[in-house]
Amino acid sequence: MSRKLRMGMVGGGTGSFIGDVHRKAAAIDGMIELVCGAFSSTAEKSIASGKDLNLDETRCYGTFEEMIQKEKALPESIRMDFVSIVTPNHMHFPPAKMALENGFHVVCDKPVTLTLDEAIELQNVIKKSEKLFVLTHNYTGNPMVKQAKAMVAKGELGTIRKIQAQYLQGWLSTSLENTGQKQASWRIDPKRSGIGGALGDIGTHAENLIEYITGLKIKEIAADLGKFGDGRVLDDDGNMLIRMENGAKGSISISQIALGEENNLAIKVYGTRGSLEWYQENPNELITRWLEEPKKIYTPNGNGLHSEAMEVCRIPAGHPEGYLEAFATIYKNFSKHLIAINNGDIIEKPDYPTVEDGIRGMKFIYAAVESDRNNSIWTKI
Amino acid sequence: MSRKLRMGMVGGGTGSFIGDVHRKAAAIDGMIELVCGAFSSTAEKSIASGKDLNLDETRCYGTFEEMIQKEKALPESIRMDFVSIVTPNHMHFPPAKMALENGFHVVCDKPVTLTLDEAIELQNVIKKSEKLFVLTHNYTGNPMVKQAKAMVAKGELGTIRKIQAQYLQGWLSTSLENTGQKQASWRIDPKRSGIGGALGDIGTHAENLIEYITGLKIKEIAADLGKFGDGRVLDDDGNMLIRMENGAKGSISISQIALGEENNLAIKVYGTRGSLEWYQENPNELITRWLEEPKKIYTPNGNGLHSEAMEVCRIPAGHPEGYLEAFATIYKNFSKHLIAINNGDIIEKPDYPTVEDGIRGMKFIYAAVESDRNNSIWTKI
Amino acid sequence: MSRKLRMGMVGGGTGSFIGDVHRKAAAIDGMIELVCGAFSSTAEKSIASGKDLNLDETRCYGTFEEMIQKEKALPESIRMDFVSIVTPNHMHFPPAKMALENGFHVVCDKPVTLTLDEAIELQNVIKKSEKLFVLTHNYTGNPMVKQAKAMVAKGELGTIRKIQAQYLQGWLSTSLENTGQKQASWRIDPKRSGIGGALGDIGTHAENLIEYITGLKIKEIAADLGKFGDGRVLDDDGNMLIRMENGAKGSISISQIALGEENNLAIKVYGTRGSLEWYQENPNELITRWLEEPKKIYTPNGNGLHSEAMEVCRIPAGHPEGYLEAFATIYKNFSKHLIAINNGDIIEKPDYPTVEDGIRGMKFIYAAVESDRNNSIWTKI
Amino acid sequence: MSRKLRMGMVGGGTGSFIGDVHRKAAAIDGMIELVCGAFSSTAEKSIASGKDLNLDETRCYGTFEEMIQKEKALPESIRMDFVSIVTPNHMHFPPAKMALENGFHVVCDKPVTLTLDEAIELQNVIKKSEKLFVLTHNYTGNPMVKQAKAMVAKGELGTIRKIQAQYLQGWLSTSLENTGQKQASWRIDPKRSGIGGALGDIGTHAENLIEYITGLKIKEIAADLGKFGDGRVLDDDGNMLIRMENGAKGSISISQIALGEENNLAIKVYGTRGSLEWYQENPNELITRWLEEPKKIYTPNGNGLHSEAMEVCRIPAGHPEGYLEAFATIYKNFSKHLIAINNGDIIEKPDYPTVEDGIRGMKFIYAAVESDRNNSIWTKI
Repeated sequence: MSRKLRMGMVGGGTGSFIGDVHRKAAAIDGMIELVCGAFSSTAEKSIASGKDLNLDETRCYGTFEEMIQKEKALPESIRMDFVSIVTPNHMHFPPAKMALENGFHVVCDKPVTLTLDEAIELQNVIKKSEKLFVLTHNYTGNPMVKQAKAMVAKGELGTIRKIQAQYLQGWLSTSLENTGQKQASWRIDPKRSGIGGALGDIGTHAENLIEYITGLKIKEIAADLGKFGDGRVLDDDGNMLIRMENGAKGSISISQIALGEENNLAIKVYGTRGSLEWYQENPNELITRWLEEPKKIYTPNGNGLHSEAMEVCRIPAGHPEGYLEAFATIYKNFSKHLIAINNGDIIEKPDYPTVEDGIRGMKFIYAAVESDRNNSIWTKI
Repeated sequence: MSRKLRMGMVGGGTGSFIGDVHRKAAAIDGMIELVCGAFSSTAEKSIASGKDLNLDETRCYGTFEEMIQKEKALPESIRMDFVSIVTPNHMHFPPAKMALENGFHVVCDKPVTLTLDEAIELQNVIKKSEKLFVLTHNYTGNPMVKQAKAMVAKGELGTIRKIQAQYLQGWLSTSLENTGQKQASWRIDPKRSGIGGALGDIGTHAENLIEYITGLKIKEIAADLGKFGDGRVLDDDGNMLIRMENGAKGSISISQIALGEENNLAIKVYGTRGSLEWYQENPNELITRWLEEPKKIYTPNGNGLHSEAMEVCRIPAGHPEGYLEAFATIYKNFSKHLIAINNGDIIEKPDYPTVEDGIRGMKFIYAAVESDRNNSIWTKI
Repeated sequence: MSRKLRMGMVGGGTGSFIGDVHRKAAAIDGMIELVCGAFSSTAEKSIASGKDLNLDETRCYGTFEEMIQKEKALPESIRMDFVSIVTPNHMHFPPAKMALENGFHVVCDKPVTLTLDEAIELQNVIKKSEKLFVLTHNYTGNPMVKQAKAMVAKGELGTIRKIQAQYLQGWLSTSLENTGQKQASWRIDPKRSGIGGALGDIGTHAENLIEYITGLKIKEIAADLGKFGDGRVLDDDGNMLIRMENGAKGSISISQIALGEENNLAIKVYGTRGSLEWYQENPNELITRWLEEPKKIYTPNGNGLHSEAMEVCRIPAGHPEGYLEAFATIYKNFSKHLIAINNGDIIEKPDYPTVEDGIRGMKFIYAAVESDRNNSIWTKI
Repeated sequence: MSRKLRMGMVGGGTGSFIGDVHRKAAAIDGMIELVCGAFSSTAEKSIASGKDLNLDETRCYGTFEEMIQKEKALPESIRMDFVSIVTPNHMHFPPAKMALENGFHVVCDKPVTLTLDEAIELQNVIKKSEKLFVLTHNYTGNPMVKQAKAMVAKGELGTIRKIQAQYLQGWLSTSLENTGQKQASWRIDPKRSGIGGALGDIGTHAENLIEYITGLKIKEIAADLGKFGDGRVLDDDGNMLIRMENGAKGSISISQIALGEENNLAIKVYGTRGSLEWYQENPNELITRWLEEPKKIYTPNGNGLHSEAMEVCRIPAGHPEGYLEAFATIYKNFSKHLIAINNGDIIEKPDYPTVEDGIRGMKFIYAAVESDRNNSIWTKI
């Protein structure tokens, strides 16, 4: 009998959004079990959350420091294998560092840290620790995103010339932060969010998706950020021009005040031989266009997919996979990696985002903010 | 500390489609753990499947009879709470009956049994056992299906006049059964499938969706079934007229030879005040039309939902939920029910399909086959 | 200098729907000019309508008889070339017959006549007259419908097995006829509409589209018609099973009480090698599916079209053509034919519907009504 | 008897794209007849084109100068009322000026002139002439664009905060101009096109649509233009940031090398109370989103339209209107205006674009080019 990987969680108390997502995503494929957590700011609340999750009270900790120390003291056959960090941005680095330095692998929500300096320091910590680090840029887990990446990599689109990405939400159209809504209040606070508002929260997803699918780096950026909400000091909207390292040009639009938009992350990539288009809200379609052929629509487990996409499809064509499944693919590929390591198998690193993606994201935030402060001049990433 | 419910599985060995779906669906919400199974026809294969699932070898059984007996002999704190049956149709009734008679609750895939007689007998067994029985008509777990049902129930559509449902697949367009494909081979075999082919496999979903959303029973049916695949003796296609108990009229079209269709289950319901339209392949939209207002599109966790729909949304609007999530909602509502019972709480039965839905499905199959044999005459359900 | 063809119109007074459509459609391609009309039931109203159309008062007639006689008396260089009949169904046959017998070509709205007998008599009149007769089954003028027909004819879909067609409207959901609405009042009146209500008005379009695209005849039909509107004696809704001459099966659903539907004519055709799907409300897409390739979407003037479709595209890809343009293609092909005849050129008959299509439509109506009267028994067309 | 308006055309010889569009658009509503033209660069070719159009040979002229002079000499009851100019950009100003100065009204394709100076001079010519001048920004003729404008104007969207527009084509992805394709060759030539390539051809449509719908002026622009085609000196691609006079921010993306895109003009407008989205390739839908209500989709002649939109719908809901119909609405509103003037009626100017729109377009092109030359610095329009 092999065994499930054991997960400890930092953050994600009852009622949290992203903690719940991580738990469900980790559970889907039956490779991971949640064994402990420092879910909230007090031991009491943490225990209450743990109870809702059917956890043993003794493994619901008041702080991440306590969790890491006490778990480390447990027998190897019981203690957690890795930590999943689902706190606001300012609380990514401290637990990640401590967990790694104490021999635990880490899965961490994005953006990777509060500051770029932290991200770079984290990279060193990871290197020294020889532990795995996963950054949950979950959208890269979608089968149609994998298909898009594979098509570009195989040259099917030719040379990439034009890219458009957007990540549009409307949930901060009103001053939600003044109502006490927890999600809103930390996201508009630079102390917890960093120098980017929407930039960090959703902009990094758009940036990551561009670089993931095209295999190209964004070279420079010209950004015009908006702070539309009353009294907001962080961006809640942004329009950006981008230039890619290969000469391609494009734009990114992000917003959390695009009223009525739910979670409209989308990308279009145009090459000299073909082009593609993908919408996160309708994730089971990849729209492609060609010089001489009609438009073709790919679907998960449908006809004509590359193996990179087929591999991550769970269910037959026509049975829609959604947000949680894509998220779960990040956990699944990490699990495969960790199990192989635990078994002493040597495998190629499965496809999941890591600290280097996190550093790119932080550089993107920094360059966008700098460009905006300089009236949108082109700024190197 | 409360605890997860313990699931034993009948069928669903490595490589199976629906067994894997049940496991993932049961896992998502963290309320259920798989503890044992009779996954395959031999103990050896069952153990191999169990190993892939990180199960203790001693709880991987060679037959469902063995599983039920041995689990029953385990201490209450360890033994399974319920059995999940994911075998071909002819193997639904025997394990369901035995499990119920030995004190286990049952979750069973559809159609409920091989024959209508079995279904009726099962109803009695359930009644006597005082155990829960869940039939996984999974599509009723979709938030937008719940919204549709709630809108009809509240009279928002007025009197229902016209209904169209379809469930179109193309995977049996070629003679897949001759290639040794396991899914195909049992579905075209009356001994394992029953008197309905596509009728049982997907037709019952369409029938169930109609009755679930409208709250109306289909009164009679006129069916013209097709057996297009070479040598097939069961229907792989069907067109049906329906008349509802309230005077509404409509049609159902099903097919497994609708080439290129993936899993196109859809329904349209027209009333005297409004109408609605839902597509399983694009499950996160409910399209509604009105006498004097423009078309309105509802989305999970979006604006304007009734509580019946809100309750089953897991993630914020715009984060697509898919097939597995809807399936998981069946398990979740069953789990809530069972936990309440275990705790001695008295609650209203949560919304999940049960043996009565299964009997309706069997009657639908029987009426359709009879009508078809009589050159499509109207036949009472 | 060549010249425009001269059109006289019967019906279509100011405020009419279909008369205006015919005029616009005839005008688009610049090959036809309206020169005279018997637009209304009195000379006075006819003159008023003619004035709105910038016509010479002397050529606005009180009756079609007067128009035909007086135009015939005019010099050949001035008199109308053909008559366009846009009256309610009961007024199709008399003017068509008289026009043909007096040497005028005829364009006639559908259904071709009030009764099947009239249609058959008309066929004889046409044969004797040696004049052209055009039935405006306008949807066959859509480029994507031409593409669909060409794909089937070339065998790209293989053998056709399954067909679904629908024509759904909601405008008679309420008792519009009681408000004095002109369009509604004649359509529910058997004296003016014939034995079919929705059947004649829109059902014949669905029937025609099936036979046009597939090149197959409907062999028999089992119909369940609805008369949902208060006091209606003609069908305002219908569900039908169909069997094609080649063994394919399918269904047709029509309605004018499908609340909220605007003009939802659609067809799906499934073969052994491919399938296709077309929606009139989104006419610039032809969706196709294939055994081993991804879904392909064809567009007017887009990649991969057959010449039969290319020929009828007016504007570059991406510039949507609509209802009027498709309608205009019927007039255009007729015009090409007539000009060729006038010039003494011998050409193959361009693709436009004619009296044989009209007779098929009448037989369809009769068979559907007979089947419905016999509780939906299969009835030969 | 009233009469049709008489149109003379400059450009638009046999085989031209936009000339044919103007002719069809002018014909649809039966208010205009083509009576003469200077269709091509030689009298011979012009006569040949005229013959295809059923024109009198004596009114097919070799030059626009000849046309204007000779038509002026004809009796008022015969001579053309207005000139329609459908030549490449460099040939807009000369015939427009001469026509106006000789008493003819002018309809002119966009962009209004070759240079900004010309545009300003033209404005003066128009003023002096007291004749009508129409610029065919045809997309503003779409019913759903009228609805969008009306909704913004009535404050239904609240304060506008964010705007995204795009006009994406792919037809210049390859070096089409080297194949002798006429449409391509003048568009990439600064002598005939002006300082903008895609900017003038399609960018002005995007700019015009933004200002038309929102009623707001673009204040400044930061542009990054691409010249991807081999040897091209004019932009064939562009990404732009925009700032509106009211503080709203946004972006415009244009391209003629967006491979596979057909004619993808689209706009999104986000306000503090609602937002809207419109796609030219699917013009019969206006998507709107709201703070507390579900998404609503408006359709031509459908429920809930404002009178500004209803007025320009020609056919019942569900009968798609397309590119030509919207174009025709420009001609129709101009015709109504001219007829009123001819009749001595005093009416408010109907809604059609004119020279002021043309000047905005030229300023937009100039600002974008200047910004691009200065590495995308913000540049006032």
